[in-house]
Amino acid sequence: MKDYIKIDEWRIIEEGFDPHVHKISESIFSLGNGRMGQRANFEEAYSGETLQGNYVAGVYYPDKTRVGWWKNGYPEYFAKVLNAANWVGIDIQLDGEQLDLAKCEVSDFRRELNMKEGYLKRNFKAKTSSGKEVEVETTRFCSMADDETGAIKYKITSVNFSGIIAITPSIDGDVRNQDSNYDEKFWDEVSKATWADGGYVQMRTKKTGFDVATGMKFNITVDRQPVSNIPKPATKDKYVAATVNVQVQGGQSITIFKYAANLSSQNHPADQLADLTKATLERVAAKGFDTMLAEQAAAWAKKWEHNDIIIEGDISAQQAIRFNIFQLNQTYTGEDDRLNIGPKGFTGEKYGGSTYWDTEAYCVPFYLSTAPQQVTRNLLLYRYKQLGKAIENAKLLGFDNGAALYPMVTMDGTECHNEWEITFEEIHRNGAIAFAIYNYVRYTGDEAYLGDYGLEVLLGIARFWSQRITWSGDRQQYVMLGVTGPNEYENNVNNNWYTSTIAVWCMQYALEVANKMQAADKAKYDALMAKIGFDTDREVARFKDIIAKMYYPYDEQQQIFLQQDGYLDKEQILVKDLPATQRPINQKWSWDRILRSCFIKQADVLQGIYFFEDRYDIDTIRRNFDFYEPRTVHESSLSPCVHAILAAKLGDEKRAYEFYLRTSRLDLDDYNNDTEDGCHITSMAGTWMSVVEGFGGMRVRDGKLSFQPFLPGKWASFSFHIGFRGITIKVTVSKSGVTVKNLSGTDIALLIYGKEQSVKAGVEEVFGH
Amino acid sequence: MKDYIKIDEWRIIEEGFDPHVHKISESIFSLGNGRMGQRANFEEAYSGETLQGNYVAGVYYPDKTRVGWWKNGYPEYFAKVLNAANWVGIDIQLDGEQLDLAKCEVSDFRRELNMKEGYLKRNFKAKTSSGKEVEVETTRFCSMADDETGAIKYKITSVNFSGIIAITPSIDGDVRNQDSNYDEKFWDEVSKATWADGGYVQMRTKKTGFDVATGMKFNITVDRQPVSNIPKPATKDKYVAATVNVQVQGGQSITIFKYAANLSSQNHPADQLADLTKATLERVAAKGFDTMLAEQAAAWAKKWEHNDIIIEGDISAQQAIRFNIFQLNQTYTGEDDRLNIGPKGFTGEKYGGSTYWDTEAYCVPFYLSTAPQQVTRNLLLYRYKQLGKAIENAKLLGFDNGAALYPMVTMDGTECHNEWEITFEEIHRNGAIAFAIYNYVRYTGDEAYLGDYGLEVLLGIARFWSQRITWSGDRQQYVMLGVTGPNEYENNVNNNWYTSTIAVWCMQYALEVANKMQAADKAKYDALMAKIGFDTDREVARFKDIIAKMYYPYDEQQQIFLQQDGYLDKEQILVKDLPATQRPINQKWSWDRILRSCFIKQADVLQGIYFFEDRYDIDTIRRNFDFYEPRTVHESSLSPCVHAILAAKLGDEKRAYEFYLRTSRLDLDDYNNDTEDGCHITSMAGTWMSVVEGFGGMRVRDGKLSFQPFLPGKWASFSFHIGFRGITIKVTVSKSGVTVKNLSGTDIALLIYGKEQSVKAGVEEVFGH
Repeated sequence: MKDYIKIDEWRIIEEGFDPHVHKISESIFSLGNGRMGQRANFEEAYSGETLQGNYVAGVYYPDKTRVGWWKNGYPEYFAKVLNAANWVGIDIQLDGEQLDLAKCEVSDFRRELNMKEGYLKRNFKAKTSSGKEVEVETTRFCSMADDETGAIKYKITSVNFSGIIAITPSIDGDVRNQDSNYDEKFWDEVSKATWADGGYVQMRTKKTGFDVATGMKFNITVDRQPVSNIPKPATKDKYVAATVNVQVQGGQSITIFKYAANLSSQNHPADQLADLTKATLERVAAKGFDTMLAEQAAAWAKKWEHNDIIIEGDISAQQAIRFNIFQLNQTYTGEDDRLNIGPKGFTGEKYGGSTYWDTEAYCVPFYLSTAPQQVTRNLLLYRYKQLGKAIENAKLLGFDNGAALYPMVTMDGTECHNEWEITFEEIHRNGAIAFAIYNYVRYTGDEAYLGDYGLEVLLGIARFWSQRITWSGDRQQYVMLGVTGPNEYENNVNNNWYTSTIAVWCMQYALEVANKMQAADKAKYDALMAKIGFDTDREVARFKDIIAKMYYPYDEQQQIFLQQDGYLDKEQILVKDLPATQRPINQKWSWDRILRSCFIKQADVLQGIYFFEDRYDIDTIRRNFDFYEPRTVHESSLSPCVHAILAAKLGDEKRAYEFYLRTSRLDLDDYNNDTEDGCHITSMAGTWMSVVEGFGGMRVRDGKLSFQPFLPGKWASFSFHIGFRGITIKVTVSKSGVTVKNLSGTDIALLIYGKEQSVKAGVEEVFGH
Repeated sequence: MKDYIKIDEWRIIEEGFDPHVHKISESIFSLGNGRMGQRANFEEAYSGETLQGNYVAGVYYPDKTRVGWWKNGYPEYFAKVLNAANWVGIDIQLDGEQLDLAKCEVSDFRRELNMKEGYLKRNFKAKTSSGKEVEVETTRFCSMADDETGAIKYKITSVNFSGIIAITPSIDGDVRNQDSNYDEKFWDEVSKATWADGGYVQMRTKKTGFDVATGMKFNITVDRQPVSNIPKPATKDKYVAATVNVQVQGGQSITIFKYAANLSSQNHPADQLADLTKATLERVAAKGFDTMLAEQAAAWAKKWEHNDIIIEGDISAQQAIRFNIFQLNQTYTGEDDRLNIGPKGFTGEKYGGSTYWDTEAYCVPFYLSTAPQQVTRNLLLYRYKQLGKAIENAKLLGFDNGAALYPMVTMDGTECHNEWEITFEEIHRNGAIAFAIYNYVRYTGDEAYLGDYGLEVLLGIARFWSQRITWSGDRQQYVMLGVTGPNEYENNVNNNWYTSTIAVWCMQYALEVANKMQAADKAKYDALMAKIGFDTDREVARFKDIIAKMYYPYDEQQQIFLQQDGYLDKEQILVKDLPATQRPINQKWSWDRILRSCFIKQADVLQGIYFFEDRYDIDTIRRNFDFYEPRTVHESSLSPCVHAILAAKLGDEKRAYEFYLRTSRLDLDDYNNDTEDGCHITSMAGTWMSVVEGFGGMRVRDGKLSFQPFLPGKWASFSFHIGFRGITIKVTVSKSGVTVKNLSGTDIALLIYGKEQSVKAGVEEVFGH
């Protein structure tokens, strides 16, 4: 745990230069616009510890899988997001001496991420070893308004020396992934060029053949006057640069405006990338830095209007929740249904930038409420388009007849993970993907989605479950053997309650949707059944038989759902009785000891209760919560939010707040000592859920929003913006009650503490507790 | 499956050169003498497919572990046997044209492994692309009589050309392991020298610092006359050679005698290796090739006298069983308690040449009966000396108080394996190690071993089990959770019957031995208890409580021991109903499908019944055999022998023979298409067991040998030599009955078909069936 980020409502601030936290800051101060992103690497050269990272959404590389022991069914390749060309570089030489903060005396260092307007600013004074002093201020952003571009304003002032400052803006494509399995480089150069005031490099990924052209255009002023010195171009493999020498006197400032463009063959013809990049650069340079920055602020203002959460009385919490919302918006804008949400977004390489069940289970609720409906729909379509590969994946494992097993980790629909206990067994992901369809339709009312896309996915998934579930002659019930639930501290268990529950629900929901569609549009229904070769009689009978005769482990004595067969055979020790020296167990214990213990990484049963809470009475929820929570170590960043929401539901406001605290500043305070690898983007959505579904008690009931809010004791009030079926409301929870402001032109009916209420268009209503 | 090896009683013969089977032959025709060994690589250069392999027993390298996903508790390093300097090389140039069978027209190729006398012979005619024809005959061996040496006689005859034959014998230490995880080379050169008629290279392993000096001394004759030409030395990194040019006419023969020595710092001071190597070479060269070969034949004759199995009426079976005995004797001679038996012996790199539970479960019975008692005792001492590391290993996994978990795979006592389901869970190996102590004492009567060494190991193991077994509050019984049994097609199961059974047996046996020792030698007992800090009251009480209240899964309906909790929840399909296209399932099915199926790699429950057969009545054995055998795919080479022995016990002679057949020619006929990696040395001991314990029905009962033989229908008779407590007998089973010949000077009492019999010293007795 670190504590160096300054508290501010709208800004993330670091003061003073500490190389030991630099990699953490590179993650925290990351920038992105959904299309591209980058870690907060310095513009000027830096020879200290750094993780260089520039990423282009959707551009990935299938790295050859590395395992110790191969198991049949492992994927040959592991698709990972690529470290792409670095466009931020601006090398500075002071009379031939390189400006490098690792080698200078640094003072007045300050880094600021302005979340309101979406830019990164950095200031410092540096004194080189020969005593030259300069002052630097640099501002940069990835444009939200023009998402193939970014810009940097880099101002350097001589404090005490007169001489030549050599300025070298560059595009450096000679990068590698830190996580490259065989130290390979993943890019080949296609072409490059330098111009009088810039240049570009076009590169192509090996194997996948994505082309990306990254270009720059720059101009330089001294004391606001353009510099006419002719830049001296330089090129190397995958690298273009240009050096401008400027004579300065003490007190004089040079400002470099560097415009960058990143164009990919996903969006443009590969053979036009070079020209288009140049044209894009000219367009944005003509606009100028200040205009681009103003557009950036406007784009972010529009985002915040729809998804800001305002917390009064707790600036630290205010900063944290905005940081989470900011990063989620930087990561995924929902405009492209080929993209998804990597667990680290654009903030690092870890987890390969790939898609996990995190998207459906944690991010979908966030985007449903804070972004246009189309955004979540695109997340659903992403999976729809990968249905064929999910069917292939299931075939590889021995299933047939259109059974679909979505991959645990993927970029393009093929499986990327290779721990057998996860790849082959953590199949509950299929359930979350089905649940997201249900959740989307419940929230948006977009029933048409089901007929057009949803049912086909649901049936593929239901077919998988119907084959994966087998008949136990011994029990005379259906069982599901050899699975790993969301609690990854158990592997290869039989009859995991969560997985069995969501599997059977998938079959029920698929049948329900199929019946509805058959009734609504028989021709369309028949066409789909023909397309997928669905044997209605036989397959429906099988689904129904499983639904009727499924076995779910249950403990009669304690009246709780049992996480899996045999869970009560374990020594039942509570987390509170674990010495602090033993935690986190995933660092302190052998894997073997973790597996044999009763300790839970994230509680499966509670995850299931969260998804299907309407099925269970409050006593059932309480009994299960009281049993599982004390055994849960929350060593997944996805764990606490579900506990916060259930604690809130059970009226335990104190603990709901405690669970919320565990993730709210996870990255800002580097709780798990791993922020340097990147930020926990997907768990940020969980933090949002803790506030809105936990403290706000928001649910959808019969097509209406319902709220059951409480105010955490430390806070004066909190408000959140929610979009729902075309209406935006702002809900404020304060000591005096619940205020709902209808920001749209349509009246809205909703439930507040279980009572039907309505708020007219443009009106604000206050409801007592 | 291949079928190219010619049938012969005493020889393994390959006729005709087929490069496609060359790597298989390199394995099959391997040579070894317990101290060193080598694959049957060609002496002359060969540019075709080959796996070069020379190995020095006990010289290993801790290769950095490669895994896809690290789990806490994995070993940092994986000790593997090293590919060592190649001393067989004799490069031949014919007027500058290299003799290379990959580039010649080859005829009359013949390879012969003479198992009776322990040498490898090869003949061929080769015609180079320019038309030069030569005939070669080469004989080589690793000396059993002088186990740091080997010798080669390489005779080359010009058929049709006159010119210069350049002969270059070499020592080439610039080798690498094919299985090197990071393509590293593992040796550094220490020193080297060339002499007029030879040279040596001394190398040191990285990290482990073993020094090995490998030297050669050669002489050359033409038509039996010594050649006086002065050799031209050549050196490269880790390489010495000398070239002799000899002018020949068509029909003339050159013979190269090459003597080799391999001396290791395990056995000599590192700084004297060079001198000692030279002295050794001079000693053996003075003896000469023919004398060495005669010594070799004599050493092997002595081995065969003690361990030959003679099968009449089935030459193929005769060849196969001798091949197994031959390879086991080449691999391990039992003279050095630092050595053990790698699953591939000296025939390949696979499995890292490390020690597995194979040694205790399969090889110990073989060596007990076929070698002096000291040999097995040394195998036991190997583990005794690694007890400290086994305790460290258990600590790493969270155990304490002297609990010992022996590694799954090891060279020096540290764990080398890194699949969590095996490394951490396949803990039954601990049981086999305890059982081997019991088996040794039962066989030899050497009770003193227990007091001196055995009990300390037994208590370390018992302590491990007493911590690994936990109390189930739910069951009110002790349970063992999260294990993998010998059936590796199940992972992380609860209450594996075999593991629980052997674990509790270990505690019982440890207590029994402790009591006996306390009664026999209280002072020694007390000293041991003090040394290991054994809390007699508390620990014994814990052992006894577990013994009394252990849970073993059992199916009441079928009255069988259940392999593990939940086994009957699986779909019960029999192997006979599996289409041939689906087998072997370990190649045809995903790991996931294998795990979820009921199919068994090798039957755990039957392994337990084999170990503890006296506990079970014949009906119990039959019920379990009849249940498990039809579900067993025997995809471990260690599986069929146990089935053969139990089938024999159940009187099912036909099936006993069928099981025997599955392993008897496993490598000779390359059943599993993997002999090119090396031979299945440890399963060869299982084949021996099938014959002696299966067909011979040999057991030890109350300190006496007991036989219950039958004669496989295809055979006219079979005999085997057995050593037992200083007495050697030859047992012959033929249609006319069981003949026991007492080859020693002491009378022996034994049981034949359950009847007490005795055979006087030097006498042969015949007993009817």
